[in-house]
Amino acid sequence: MIENKLSILDEIRTIVGAKYLITKPDLLYKYSKDCTSNKVTIPSAVVLPKNTQEISKIIAICNETKTAITVRGGGTGVSGGALSVNSGIILSLERLNKIIEINKVDRIAIVESGVITKDLKDAVLKDGLNFPQNISSADSCFIGGNVAVSSGSPKSLKYGTTKNYVVNLEVVLPDGRIIWTGKNVSKNATGYNLTQLFSGSEGTLGVITKVVLKLVPPMKELVLMVPFTKIDNLFICVQQFFAKGYSASSIEFIDGVGFKLVSQYLDNSYHIKSTTEGILWIEIEGDYSDKLLDEALKISRHINAYTEEEIHVADNPSEVKALWKMRSKVGEAVINHTFFRDVDIVVPCSKIDEMYKAIVIIANKFNFNYTVFGHVGDGNFHVNIFQNKEQTIEQWEVNIVVWVKEIFLKALELGGTISGEHGIGKINLPYIAEAIPTAQIIMDKIKKTFDKNQIINP
Amino acid sequence: MIENKLSILDEIRTIVGAKYLITKPDLLYKYSKDCTSNKVTIPSAVVLPKNTQEISKIIAICNETKTAITVRGGGTGVSGGALSVNSGIILSLERLNKIIEINKVDRIAIVESGVITKDLKDAVLKDGLNFPQNISSADSCFIGGNVAVSSGSPKSLKYGTTKNYVVNLEVVLPDGRIIWTGKNVSKNATGYNLTQLFSGSEGTLGVITKVVLKLVPPMKELVLMVPFTKIDNLFICVQQFFAKGYSASSIEFIDGVGFKLVSQYLDNSYHIKSTTEGILWIEIEGDYSDKLLDEALKISRHINAYTEEEIHVADNPSEVKALWKMRSKVGEAVINHTFFRDVDIVVPCSKIDEMYKAIVIIANKFNFNYTVFGHVGDGNFHVNIFQNKEQTIEQWEVNIVVWVKEIFLKALELGGTISGEHGIGKINLPYIAEAIPTAQIIMDKIKKTFDKNQIINP
Ligand SMILES: Cc1cc2nc3c(=O)[nH]c(=O)nc-3n(C[C@H](O)[C@H](O)[C@H](O)COP(=O)(O)OP(=O)(O)OC[C@H]3O[C@@H](n4cnc5c(N)ncnc54)[C@H](O)[C@@H]3O)c2cc1C
Ligand SMILES: Cc1cc2nc3c(=O)[nH]c(=O)nc-3n(C[C@H](O)[C@H](O)[C@H](O)COP(=O)(O)OP(=O)(O)OC[C@H]3O[C@@H](n4cnc5c(N)ncnc54)[C@H](O)[C@@H]3O)c2cc1C
Repeated sequence: MIENKLSILDEIRTIVGAKYLITKPDLLYKYSKDCTSNKVTIPSAVVLPKNTQEISKIIAICNETKTAITVRGGGTGVSGGALSVNSGIILSLERLNKIIEINKVDRIAIVESGVITKDLKDAVLKDGLNFPQNISSADSCFIGGNVAVSSGSPKSLKYGTTKNYVVNLEVVLPDGRIIWTGKNVSKNATGYNLTQLFSGSEGTLGVITKVVLKLVPPMKELVLMVPFTKIDNLFICVQQFFAKGYSASSIEFIDGVGFKLVSQYLDNSYHIKSTTEGILWIEIEGDYSDKLLDEALKISRHINAYTEEEIHVADNPSEVKALWKMRSKVGEAVINHTFFRDVDIVVPCSKIDEMYKAIVIIANKFNFNYTVFGHVGDGNFHVNIFQNKEQTIEQWEVNIVVWVKEIFLKALELGGTISGEHGIGKINLPYIAEAIPTAQIIMDKIKKTFDKNQIINP
Repeated sequence: MIENKLSILDEIRTIVGAKYLITKPDLLYKYSKDCTSNKVTIPSAVVLPKNTQEISKIIAICNETKTAITVRGGGTGVSGGALSVNSGIILSLERLNKIIEINKVDRIAIVESGVITKDLKDAVLKDGLNFPQNISSADSCFIGGNVAVSSGSPKSLKYGTTKNYVVNLEVVLPDGRIIWTGKNVSKNATGYNLTQLFSGSEGTLGVITKVVLKLVPPMKELVLMVPFTKIDNLFICVQQFFAKGYSASSIEFIDGVGFKLVSQYLDNSYHIKSTTEGILWIEIEGDYSDKLLDEALKISRHINAYTEEEIHVADNPSEVKALWKMRSKVGEAVINHTFFRDVDIVVPCSKIDEMYKAIVIIANKFNFNYTVFGHVGDGNFHVNIFQNKEQTIEQWEVNIVVWVKEIFLKALELGGTISGEHGIGKINLPYIAEAIPTAQIIMDKIKKTFDKNQIINP
């Protein structure tokens, strides 16, 4: 078996060159974890191919020899998706980092999948275009990872998640064949929507090697940051916002605990009362500054029915950035704080108040410390449970399993789902049968149709 | 065999009641064609179930007995998708016409798939919401048909095609099982995107019985109708519109021949010179009338570099509707005119000028009369070839087969695709292997995964 693996690695070395096959234990460590708290698995090797052709050959070898291989983008995932399995190989896409074309007439960008998301955003902005996602991990995640998970961001309220901007994908299938899932056109009714089947498939159906993205013109932004003394009012304020016909590009939320954490982390506190139970960010977009201010005034009037605290408004780019920082850095603040386990549930917006109440009851039942934040306009909550001093780590981890299940069942009961943007990965796999019973059977069949030998992200 | 079919029909009759199983030849005729020119196939029977449960039972019987069954929505398709095959049965969804819920907080509508598209649009407008597609056949097509084909419309430039508005689907699988493809939430990273796999699958993977649609608030509209003396300038004007950073909700086009046809058909001519080679419609949307006018002024300045003809502007709803009518009725005018064959190709917008030139050359080679119109901002051309007096119908039909292939090859060569919104149906099936060679193999496998016995829309 070991001999077998050695000869596989020799073959792979011939393809990529010795420099790009890592097997030294100290160098492997970097690839043994992503951003999932407390998860480490050491791969047998890491390969760093430079292009699609090399990947095709590597995958073909893995398929012939039934060797497990896991695709790694930026390694910022929080569901353990980029971790190796069965002492398999990691395929890292860090060298596929070319921006191939930005086309201003077709409003598309053609890029390799290992391009860092922020680099892509900066490049298209120079051409007066925007990739309308502002994912918090943009500095280090890859565009291929964003597509593989169909990541979301505050802008998803208006623009949908990453998948809505995927026009076409180059993919290496589990048998090594290279296909394009579509064409570089915005409308395509020619056969099944393979592009969308691969978007969000978390690398289980093939390796995404090139991505064609739709772009839009950038717009002016205005942000309101609104503290609420009573969190119940925050949720009703959001629901009534929609019921009354208002629109926003983002509606985001952090509870009081999360706001304190991020304030400490950034050493930068806006004047928020200690009794504040939750903060809301509402971002609106438009082409005209005067109309944005008119709109903000109307929205402020709506908000004033639900809170007496002061509304912070930002309408120039640097202030907008500063206000958003409090929201966008909360994930980092949590990672920095302690071991944690998070879930990424979604419920219909009409149920956010009910879901939040259930979260509090369930967390209290286990005596957990927690913070909740997320994309509340989309009904998407990130619930983070901290490892605390009163429970040993073993006790805590046992409790966590029961807790996750209770939270998931409640989200499902309210017509929701167990992941909005982080994906199933490894850590949510035990729950998927419950979440999508019949659909799961179909998904297993699709996986087998593509990957008979179950080698890619098995 | 006939006895066998009789007993199948008996079983189906027991499920739906005698009134809802049609077998009388004169009544079958209505279901023997859709809106595809010159195609008639008589089914052995037509069944009109009233709900998902009945459909599930019918499909299970067809699956057990390997009886071909074809789903029919409004029957307005132009690719022959709703025509029966192998003397099979037609499953008509006309009785599934209930609007189940319109939710203003979640901004979704839950409807049965047999609801007429216009009825849906009217109903949601009453709640201050919009289904942002303005398909020309809205008076008679069904929302389920729109989803099955992922139909487009002028608004697709801004909003994408129908599939972008599909949140969740209830589907009867080819073995009779009933599933929901997702949840009624806007973000879902839980497993493969089955919702998008079924959207645009033209009924080949299952019967769509309920549709959950995302809705948006309606906006004010302003339309410019612009004649061009030189059609080459029209295409450059569109390409430069995007290159310069302008945006529109629709950019539509009809050539001179089409405009004359629709003018005769509607008996309503705007003053357009006989030398005009093409007309462009540019629609912009916004919340503020004054800003729409500012924007229209800027766009007019852009346009004036490419044409000297008079620009018609409409900014109140009734005028907007009148200007659009000239564009939206051209399909009807063509159907009314003579036998025709059309294609629905798409190319990147940066190639519309090249594609148009090729269309003219290829049509002239065969001595064809034709008109071209379509969603030019999306690179989507409908090319219509008329049966003319100089060629017998047999000659014409032989030529058409060669012509379709030449046009498709050119669209593919330019990085485009053979259908943007009408789907493959029956009439484009012979060309699909050429259009998507590797992908087709995968699609065949997916079809078999879902429909082992190849009974639904085989
Ligand atoms: C501080 C912080 C903030 C975050 N903020 C957000 C946020 O705002 N929104 C959000 O949605 N997520 C967020 N995340 C989670 C994470 O950044 C996203 O899921 C991101 O899209 C992962 O991209 P990646 O390139 O790092 O993927 P990885 O972690 O490397 O991989 C993720 C999964 O995709 C697969 N994969 C990666 N690339 C490919 C490819 N080319 N082909 C096939 N499969 C592939 C992997 O096998 C794995 O299963 C955050 C994470 C952190 C640590
Ligand atoms: C005058 C005219 C104008 C048109 N304008 C446009 C336009 O602007 N844009 C555009 O995209 N198209 C247009 N079309 C084409 C047509 O109207 C669309 O394709 C429409 O979406 C078809 O809907 P339908 O309900 O009539 O479907 P049908 O014709 O009944 O069926 C179309 C296909 O979908 C399948 N199907 C239907 N319902 C279901 C279901 N519930 N479950 C599974 N499969 C199903 C059928 O089996 C068939 O393969 C036009 C047609 C005409 C005649």
